Amino acid sequence: MNLFPLPLQKLIRDLSKLPSIGEKSATRLAYHLVSKDKVLAGRLATALREVTESVHLCRQCFFLTEEEHLCPLCRNPHRDSSLLCIVEKPMDVISIERLGDFRGYYHVLHGVWAPLRGINEEEIRLKELFLRLDHAPVKEVIVATGSTVEGDATAMYIANHIVGRSIICTRLAQGMPKGGDLEYTDEITLSRAFAGRSNL
Amino acid sequence: MNLFPLPLQKLIRDLSKLPSIGEKSATRLAYHLVSKDKVLAGRLATALREVTESVHLCRQCFFLTEEEHLCPLCRNPHRDSSLLCIVEKPMDVISIERLGDFRGYYHVLHGVWAPLRGINEEEIRLKELFLRLDHAPVKEVIVATGSTVEGDATAMYIANHIVGRSIICTRLAQGMPKGGDLEYTDEITLSRAFAGRSNL
Repeated sequence: MNLFPLPLQKLIRDLSKLPSIGEKSATRLAYHLVSKDKVLAGRLATALREVTESVHLCRQCFFLTEEEHLCPLCRNPHRDSSLLCIVEKPMDVISIERLGDFRGYYHVLHGVWAPLRGINEEEIRLKELFLRLDHAPVKEVIVATGSTVEGDATAMYIANHIVGRSIICTRLAQGMPKGGDLEYTDEITLSRAFAGRSNL
Repeated sequence: MNLFPLPLQKLIRDLSKLPSIGEKSATRLAYHLVSKDKVLAGRLATALREVTESVHLCRQCFFLTEEEHLCPLCRNPHRDSSLLCIVEKPMDVISIERLGDFRGYYHVLHGVWAPLRGINEEEIRLKELFLRLDHAPVKEVIVATGSTVEGDATAMYIANHIVGRSIICTRLAQGMPKGGDLEYTDEITLSRAFAGRSNL
């Protein structure tokens, strides 16, 4: 028999469905909300309601937006339509925009191609990407997925599908991170840093 | 400039106010809710609303309850009114009730006495405890706060306030946990296990 009141049990159960939140953490969070900060609980309920009602994916790049059709990035006519940067998730767009170097458009996959984990082309926005490339004046596709095995596989998958079109497909450089110490750099990173060495 | 839509920014800001959730985790949670599981987001909003509206503290023991005055534990006339167990938080009541050994009543402090961190008698339910002891037929107060420095200090504080009344004040035994290896047991635990040794 669970002694907690039913609404609290429900909140704990729902919180523990969030990624990386177990039942213990969910209980601690629910306890905090109900007995220490009911104002925050109310604000969170409103924020969740607003987000589910007003935030959805941009119909072109699949970034998150409140707009009906296109997000502000896609609607900006001053960006370079010959460049398309492909990322795994919306947070990656934020990271790249923070640099301020890239002036092209984006395409958010919402995942990586990982058939071993059951994530096929249909699970991520790859079909939409290839459809988009049929019509957009893109000259270079920059695959900025993570430098993981699955990120690399996704990049190869995209590159293979683009072959034959007059589009260059590039991948972010892989090598030593700034401040990296050779002694503590893993073999794959070091081998890629060698392969990608450049003239001084 | 933050590129995320405003409702999403608000959700991230509110989530990152939860204990042990930083901005990165809050962003990941918000992203999950908005683009992978809007159903869960809606359920969470409802659960939060319900909890804030219907769950509050029992007026006697300060456990969480939906009842107007007393929680089911306090309303149970078959428990032993001569025993009162004092705990830090509602989750501790659940842990003790799971054992099924204790048949007395509870008092939840919602914290520990920690003047160095600015948590004085008024911040936790100590005043209410002493008031309760004035009227309840309690013969033994079992202080089941954690075996931390602050848990010990809280126990001493309560014991000092009870002196003079005809109430015994006891503390949960401290010693080796089940499965504990002497080699890896810290000095304080080992020293308390020695001091509290019992006849075989």
